Amino acid sequence: MSANFRSDNETPVAAPVWKALEAANQGTAHSYAEDDWSLRLDDAFSALFGTTVRVLPVATGTVANSIALAAVTPPWGSVFCHRNAHIFCDESGAPEFFGNGLRLVPVDGPEGKMQPEVLRKAIHASEGHGVHSYAPASISLTQSTESGSVYQADEIAALCAVAAEKGMATHLDGARFGNAVAALGCEPADVTWKAGVQMLSFGASKNGCMAAEALLFFDQQDKLEVAERLRKRSGHLFSKMRYVSAQLLAYIHDGLWLELARHANAQAATFAGAVEAHPEARLEYPAEANEVFVRWSAEGLQRVEAAGIEFLYWPGHDDLARFVFGHSTTDQDTQSLIAAFGA
Amino acid sequence: MSANFRSDNETPVAAPVWKALEAANQGTAHSYAEDDWSLRLDDAFSALFGTTVRVLPVATGTVANSIALAAVTPPWGSVFCHRNAHIFCDESGAPEFFGNGLRLVPVDGPEGKMQPEVLRKAIHASEGHGVHSYAPASISLTQSTESGSVYQADEIAALCAVAAEKGMATHLDGARFGNAVAALGCEPADVTWKAGVQMLSFGASKNGCMAAEALLFFDQQDKLEVAERLRKRSGHLFSKMRYVSAQLLAYIHDGLWLELARHANAQAATFAGAVEAHPEARLEYPAEANEVFVRWSAEGLQRVEAAGIEFLYWPGHDDLARFVFGHSTTDQDTQSLIAAFGA
Amino acid sequence: MSANFRSDNETPVAAPVWKALEAANQGTAHSYAEDDWSLRLDDAFSALFGTTVRVLPVATGTVANSIALAAVTPPWGSVFCHRNAHIFCDESGAPEFFGNGLRLVPVDGPEGKMQPEVLRKAIHASEGHGVHSYAPASISLTQSTESGSVYQADEIAALCAVAAEKGMATHLDGARFGNAVAALGCEPADVTWKAGVQMLSFGASKNGCMAAEALLFFDQQDKLEVAERLRKRSGHLFSKMRYVSAQLLAYIHDGLWLELARHANAQAATFAGAVEAHPEARLEYPAEANEVFVRWSAEGLQRVEAAGIEFLYWPGHDDLARFVFGHSTTDQDTQSLIAAFGA
Amino acid sequence: MSANFRSDNETPVAAPVWKALEAANQGTAHSYAEDDWSLRLDDAFSALFGTTVRVLPVATGTVANSIALAAVTPPWGSVFCHRNAHIFCDESGAPEFFGNGLRLVPVDGPEGKMQPEVLRKAIHASEGHGVHSYAPASISLTQSTESGSVYQADEIAALCAVAAEKGMATHLDGARFGNAVAALGCEPADVTWKAGVQMLSFGASKNGCMAAEALLFFDQQDKLEVAERLRKRSGHLFSKMRYVSAQLLAYIHDGLWLELARHANAQAATFAGAVEAHPEARLEYPAEANEVFVRWSAEGLQRVEAAGIEFLYWPGHDDLARFVFGHSTTDQDTQSLIAAFGA
Repeated sequence: MSANFRSDNETPVAAPVWKALEAANQGTAHSYAEDDWSLRLDDAFSALFGTTVRVLPVATGTVANSIALAAVTPPWGSVFCHRNAHIFCDESGAPEFFGNGLRLVPVDGPEGKMQPEVLRKAIHASEGHGVHSYAPASISLTQSTESGSVYQADEIAALCAVAAEKGMATHLDGARFGNAVAALGCEPADVTWKAGVQMLSFGASKNGCMAAEALLFFDQQDKLEVAERLRKRSGHLFSKMRYVSAQLLAYIHDGLWLELARHANAQAATFAGAVEAHPEARLEYPAEANEVFVRWSAEGLQRVEAAGIEFLYWPGHDDLARFVFGHSTTDQDTQSLIAAFGA
Repeated sequence: MSANFRSDNETPVAAPVWKALEAANQGTAHSYAEDDWSLRLDDAFSALFGTTVRVLPVATGTVANSIALAAVTPPWGSVFCHRNAHIFCDESGAPEFFGNGLRLVPVDGPEGKMQPEVLRKAIHASEGHGVHSYAPASISLTQSTESGSVYQADEIAALCAVAAEKGMATHLDGARFGNAVAALGCEPADVTWKAGVQMLSFGASKNGCMAAEALLFFDQQDKLEVAERLRKRSGHLFSKMRYVSAQLLAYIHDGLWLELARHANAQAATFAGAVEAHPEARLEYPAEANEVFVRWSAEGLQRVEAAGIEFLYWPGHDDLARFVFGHSTTDQDTQSLIAAFGA
Repeated sequence: MSANFRSDNETPVAAPVWKALEAANQGTAHSYAEDDWSLRLDDAFSALFGTTVRVLPVATGTVANSIALAAVTPPWGSVFCHRNAHIFCDESGAPEFFGNGLRLVPVDGPEGKMQPEVLRKAIHASEGHGVHSYAPASISLTQSTESGSVYQADEIAALCAVAAEKGMATHLDGARFGNAVAALGCEPADVTWKAGVQMLSFGASKNGCMAAEALLFFDQQDKLEVAERLRKRSGHLFSKMRYVSAQLLAYIHDGLWLELARHANAQAATFAGAVEAHPEARLEYPAEANEVFVRWSAEGLQRVEAAGIEFLYWPGHDDLARFVFGHSTTDQDTQSLIAAFGA
Repeated sequence: MSANFRSDNETPVAAPVWKALEAANQGTAHSYAEDDWSLRLDDAFSALFGTTVRVLPVATGTVANSIALAAVTPPWGSVFCHRNAHIFCDESGAPEFFGNGLRLVPVDGPEGKMQPEVLRKAIHASEGHGVHSYAPASISLTQSTESGSVYQADEIAALCAVAAEKGMATHLDGARFGNAVAALGCEPADVTWKAGVQMLSFGASKNGCMAAEALLFFDQQDKLEVAERLRKRSGHLFSKMRYVSAQLLAYIHDGLWLELARHANAQAATFAGAVEAHPEARLEYPAEANEVFVRWSAEGLQRVEAAGIEFLYWPGHDDLARFVFGHSTTDQDTQSLIAAFGA
């Protein structure tokens, strides 16, 4: 059987989350997020983050991101994000759809990270002349980044400070937030509201859930009504929301989310170490969370593929590959991958 | 413990569907509907309907309806539906959002049903003067209806014929399609494509699934690409789609969907019989599927409520109540309801 | 040469307006409404209405209506208007487009007028259940109405009071506002802000201008920035706005707008008198401004048409016709029309 | 009196166009582009371009551009244009609004021009992975460019060929099309349909009209109905369209548009020559049409300003200025500008 490193969104549901789903599957429950599980989310996430959080459970990261950005960005407003951001590259215009034609402005930066001065210049350059130009309205960071790196708390704070200078809102796409926090060994608050992040797409699907994400409002809570309307109008207010919320509660209960992330990160680190020791292959970016980007010859990567390892070539490249490690990746999977890279 | 007749969307997942979810939860699977379960949907539904069907799995009925209507209706086009239709009353403008400002035109009719001649007149009345008016583009029926009644095959055919006269597309909102087919004892084809229905929102969530609906294209298949784009842009292309598709496959396997629906319908019929025999309460509409609308004095309904029975008053009324029966409704539930109506 | 009673939007530009255009056509002027004419609009309209007015000059009534409604109605909000309203029947969904899928709710009423109690009930009936339903957000009246009748000040006040009860915004479509004020002999303030109207589409194109309308904000002035953005994004911020604004200034200067309207109304009254005296034809609605709706046999109306008179049959009718009188309608035109109705 | 070089959109209406407006202002005319002037546009422009052209008269360039792009680009499609393009920098998201969230992709290039190989790479880079990415749908060029340069016919053909390779539609923003054609001394067909341009925003407002642009379809004529609907829904179907169409007919009659453009270009050339001879100031771009970009010290430009000359600093720069010459620029204006640059 082949090992699959294509994406952590191809992993199954973790056992404790499954048990929670089973427990939720008893008898009737009120619909449309009026169930007992959904009603506990605000408290549970407020405890996790050590501040008052308002939570909107949804099923995909795309909708969490899109609702967040549309809630704080007018149709004539712009959102600044890294050029490789999922919202810019991989959502087929979902933010633009939810935001009725808002504009995403890509910002370049090494290792998948935006840098404060480059961000500031990009914002400044976009401010043309009043009503004729888009109005800078928000920024969106990704943690861990699309390149597998992790923002330090002070890096996030510096970017959020640029936004604050301009009165812009701040959002963090945390599709792999657990992996980042596990890597940093910090409190989740440290890299979110304490660093100036106002809204977080708290990802869970990739790290052990079936289809569950939590859109968290640390700030901007007067936009919650808009967010709820967008969720409803986009068909994301599930009738049986209990099943989404039960996943989320189990996922953050007793540190499960970090435990799962640490496992994935550790597998990634083992592989990254092997790449560093490899005579030809090399790491394209620092492998700080659960994604490892490897630059190697096309021939080399083809041999890995031929060995039955599943992974993704980076679009447009035959010598750059991404390997993603998940909560269900086994030691054996990782060893078979390392073996395919040759001795 | 109280019996809950508020809605069938408050029921749990049926055991065979749960087993299928468990079976799907093994190892990795390709994401974004490229998994083995999703890839079998076209064949499975084609077999069920006896014709070539293209299937888009999604998680809610609202998104199924909205994608279907937006795919065949331009922003300056109108959709004709019954005044009580879910798309008109209960989706907060989701079809208008997906359709960039298309217009829903409500049509009156008894027992939740549109009537051909009334529909024809409504379409005609809306055709004003070319580019100044909305262009009639589609119709949407609901089966079983919002009033708990069921369209006969020839009734659907007559309505679809009116649409065909005008070159309009046809959609059926089958949130409770299983209940309707179970009630009619017909083939699913008889009340869909054979009657002129081009697209069907095939509901499963209310009748035993967790969050699973299938948008079926019997016709209009050149709109499938648009539909897929709308699904993606609205955040409904789940990464772990296998869990949605596994539900659907189990739901239609070996007649499970009809078995579950027959059970719900039978419970509803038992209660409806008791209402008919009741000295004061009476049926508001024919109880043909799994919903029973009861007209009684406010005092009477309050006594039912006081007995611990959960149900919904019809908005704006204290003497009209809806009781919905589901796959998990027990004989004891129904008897406790009948008992609450008093002897 | 035939007389044309099809619509007042088929009339030419009145001489004083033309002179003002000529005067504006001297040398260069700053673009995008920063010219001297545009900058005088706020003062000029404030003087006319006896209160502080903020003015957005535009070129069509459709865009004035659409910006006004979209500025105060969220995409999940509804606008209540008469079933015959131009915004509902004749703008192909422009309000829905500007408002990203807002919903217009038609209200029935005799003689083109909404009635307070019917409006209240329609609003109440639309309020279903929170996030699932559209939220009632605004009302839009038309003055003079689509039937040629005119709202009295207290009628407008009563409708605006219903809106105020619900915290809804109020808009008046004044495509023929001059005809209404001329008919009433009141101050323009009496039937607008003093009666509770917050925004007015002040029409000028139909009554002597080339292409000029003023969107007036008596209230809701915090929505002005949104309105300016919508004007820009819809392509309605003319570079040479001076020509629009010069029309508006001339139009309201020294009572020209009322003088032109009185002329049109008088011609209409002359014809209406002839219809009242006619043995067969009859007035369909009270002819209170410059539109006269006549019910007569199809044969009778065909004879009028054969006499070279241009007019419009009401859509779907061969025995109901509309005759509109404009600032350029001559006594001879009107006499030829009366003659065509026979002796 | 100061000379104004801020923009050609600050110029008055040219005398022959004014005369045509006067001539059109006689009696009544059918509304909504059913008048005699509008009905002649197809023939007049077909004759001018030597091919069958379908014409949509509108009042602003922004709406012409937005309708064209939205007609050929789905909401999930992308439009490639130069980074300085008006549609990208100066329309506040009008194309995104009309196109329901389509995306503009900016392409860098010297002197305001896109280059085929760079365009090809940009398109290729945007094609990620099917439904997850925007689909490349169209390109939009500007002629003359935003930098005052002019595309040669073969340059346009090469860019359109790149689009054709990908099955993408082609649009040319001709806000200053007259200036470009006058500069090239070619036939208008040479730099449009013969070079692969399918749709043209034929500008007239900047070069002698009041508010008139023609959206021309050389190809893509099956999109004309969509274009007409977009015009209506955006409030741009003027009731008194005769005044727009009369301007257009006069503008292209007997070479007026080229005569006006040649005058403006000649004034620009005179000034550009003076800059080239200047000891310090220099041309930023080739001055090929009627715009001249000058790089000079901030002190130098301030002296020009102090001399009463009106012009625009380029956004974000105090040492880069744009001077635009129009049909109404006099020799005296130009000489006063040259004088202000000092001896």
